[in-house]
Amino acid sequence: MTEPEENVGILESNSFSMSRLDELDGNLHDLVARREALGPCYRLFYQHPLHLVRGRGTRLFDADGTEYLDMYNNIPSMGHSNPYVTRAVTEQLGLINTHTRYVHENILDYADALLARLPQEIDRIMFMCSGSEANDLAVRCAQLYTGGEGIIVTAEAYHGNTALISGLSPSIGRDVPMSRTMRMIPTPDTFRLGTEEIGEWMCARVSEQIADMRRHGIKFAGVLFDDIFSSDGVIPGTPGFLAPVVELVHKEGGLYLADEVQPGFCRTGAGFWGFERHGITPDIVTMGKPMANGIACSAMAIRHEVLDAFAAKNPYFNTFAGNPVAMAAAKAVLAYIDEFGMLEHTRVMGEKLLGAVGEVAKAHPALGDVRGSGLFMGVDIVEPGTTEPDRALAVRLIEQLRENRVLISLCGPYGSVLKVRPPLVFDDADLDFFVGALEKSLVELGK
Amino acid sequence: MTEPEENVGILESNSFSMSRLDELDGNLHDLVARREALGPCYRLFYQHPLHLVRGRGTRLFDADGTEYLDMYNNIPSMGHSNPYVTRAVTEQLGLINTHTRYVHENILDYADALLARLPQEIDRIMFMCSGSEANDLAVRCAQLYTGGEGIIVTAEAYHGNTALISGLSPSIGRDVPMSRTMRMIPTPDTFRLGTEEIGEWMCARVSEQIADMRRHGIKFAGVLFDDIFSSDGVIPGTPGFLAPVVELVHKEGGLYLADEVQPGFCRTGAGFWGFERHGITPDIVTMGKPMANGIACSAMAIRHEVLDAFAAKNPYFNTFAGNPVAMAAAKAVLAYIDEFGMLEHTRVMGEKLLGAVGEVAKAHPALGDVRGSGLFMGVDIVEPGTTEPDRALAVRLIEQLRENRVLISLCGPYGSVLKVRPPLVFDDADLDFFVGALEKSLVELGK
Repeated sequence: MTEPEENVGILESNSFSMSRLDELDGNLHDLVARREALGPCYRLFYQHPLHLVRGRGTRLFDADGTEYLDMYNNIPSMGHSNPYVTRAVTEQLGLINTHTRYVHENILDYADALLARLPQEIDRIMFMCSGSEANDLAVRCAQLYTGGEGIIVTAEAYHGNTALISGLSPSIGRDVPMSRTMRMIPTPDTFRLGTEEIGEWMCARVSEQIADMRRHGIKFAGVLFDDIFSSDGVIPGTPGFLAPVVELVHKEGGLYLADEVQPGFCRTGAGFWGFERHGITPDIVTMGKPMANGIACSAMAIRHEVLDAFAAKNPYFNTFAGNPVAMAAAKAVLAYIDEFGMLEHTRVMGEKLLGAVGEVAKAHPALGDVRGSGLFMGVDIVEPGTTEPDRALAVRLIEQLRENRVLISLCGPYGSVLKVRPPLVFDDADLDFFVGALEKSLVELGK
Repeated sequence: MTEPEENVGILESNSFSMSRLDELDGNLHDLVARREALGPCYRLFYQHPLHLVRGRGTRLFDADGTEYLDMYNNIPSMGHSNPYVTRAVTEQLGLINTHTRYVHENILDYADALLARLPQEIDRIMFMCSGSEANDLAVRCAQLYTGGEGIIVTAEAYHGNTALISGLSPSIGRDVPMSRTMRMIPTPDTFRLGTEEIGEWMCARVSEQIADMRRHGIKFAGVLFDDIFSSDGVIPGTPGFLAPVVELVHKEGGLYLADEVQPGFCRTGAGFWGFERHGITPDIVTMGKPMANGIACSAMAIRHEVLDAFAAKNPYFNTFAGNPVAMAAAKAVLAYIDEFGMLEHTRVMGEKLLGAVGEVAKAHPALGDVRGSGLFMGVDIVEPGTTEPDRALAVRLIEQLRENRVLISLCGPYGSVLKVRPPLVFDDADLDFFVGALEKSLVELGK
């Protein structure tokens, strides 16, 4: 089987190469050429990049007026250009937008609303601008509270871009040095492990890594897991399989850090938070992307006793974080979720989508595994009848889907898993359009 | 003389203590009490916190309708609730707000506009959400390019809140462990050194720390300086004094990192960037706070050869950074700067303000040193006729100024320097109001 090491990480799975600039025409060529000013770290999706100028709900429009169904972007979770969010931001910008050293209701109302949706043990919340900043602070809190430095993540995890968190994000790229006090467990690949009951397997892997830390004189501080393992390939597994893992982590003196940047905010349909599927109570919960539908906003929710260990020594201030405008946008997202019953909508649409794609897979065995929870699915593209990943086909499939006006991308250790993650306002018409385009694309590719 | 160690860092200079909660009344009491949900890291300005609900230009209004002149906040540099920014954000939110993996003009237009204002050697720019993220990446780039780890900062520097950058921010607090590869030079305190010609002094201090690094087996990577030394007490010094420092740093194989989060965007009146006062060309320039007038936005501008060392190994993606809405706000700020001639306005108003506060100091010797560039001033509060800082008076003065409807704060190693940093839309009426309130407050305090 292809080894994960041969791959290049999630950031490379679906990207344009500047060496192909000359293949682009006209205005697009000129715009892409101008991106040289941004330097070589920036990546564009697709071999023929998209120039998007407008969005509404689940739909995106390019400069030529072509309409696409967005099956990938989870930041505008309440829909592109959500008018509730626009109105809230505009109104607040017209009033005031200062920082948290003055009293303002927005941050308090929002903090109360989020804490009310979290287990009661998690009774403090702090705001940042990005999921990276939230994870950076969460790891430091866990380290100070436990007195340990050792953090365990999964082999294809991505948790952010700061110095500390890059070192805990193995999927960033094979050349990026990892933290010397970090240990990885393999991707909990239910498809290739042949079972969704992987709690015992996970516990064994975590135990091994704690033992390895001990051998190297590293004190265990905790695990940092995305509970649907988004960049590992979107792996829901059996609900509850993480419960014994949390128990083990606590027994070993560590903390359970739930990175809810992707599974949070109703995405999995099983609860407001992804971890609710497992009936667990994390020690720290981080969140970001969909929180404010695109306005920079993230947070770390935490047990007060864990935070106190950090706060005793460290002041913390974050200029833009929790400002009245970001909080107005975030409040609008919560209000939208409640008014339109987005959790239930996500659950219902997710079941329909899983069923429909499952049907497609019956006729197209290149779709080797179809799994998901809510509107978050992974579709493993394989050599038919095997578990052998077919990355080349996966890349051709997303390009073909783009021809058929569906935007989507890839993830997983082999870069071969379709990451299906539309805005949550996804509806029946979107479902029909997606399934039609998927079937058409597979037929066009002869699969 | 009071030792800097006795102080508690900039974050503590002017803050409310929750132990005094019972002294607050009514709605304010209830709102402040609710901040327990945010945990103990959050600080409020003033012994009696402010509940601000509206702002316009340089003015802020509390919940009781009381109007204040803002002499402190540099994020809304183009004025609170700037209508150009509100319009730009609203329009863009109604169109599209995705990420940098699709082509969009806003980021390209803005990148070009900023690079055109930077020295031509600095030819790449990347966007982040916060100044902390920008400095985090800048330091990693410097370390990868030089192969060194050693970074030199000033003794009261504040550069941000990530794990890496907290360790390079000694003013955060005396209990926060600093990076083991960081070295500090003393605050370049022109007032107490008795001269503004401190280039030679700075070179000697930097050389000492490079020698100390060598002794400890740490390879020098560079210096990270805010060129007006904002949290060290706002110290402009003689224009040009940093030129020999840059020369020394380069001779020693290091890079010069200019943290322009505070001095950038016309603040010093001497140029669009603070470093222009010194006629220097940094290797990396970071920026943030006023960039988008309050919408989260920051950036790192860099020489391509330095970035290439990082980019060769590290992909980098930042979810919200450089998105069309943040870039629309940032473009609106630049347009406002140009349309209203904000650089020249800042220079002219800064000279008037420096002159006027200088006059006040003649009659009130507690104002021991009045220094500044543009609309960024430090006023050293001392025991008259000495250089002995009078922190107690400084704290009473900002409280008295607040009674007289001026909002301002403190900085510097002794927490005794008035940090005068109004929105740049500060005008003659504001000047009269501030000077009147300053004189009145000093008289009321018997100084």
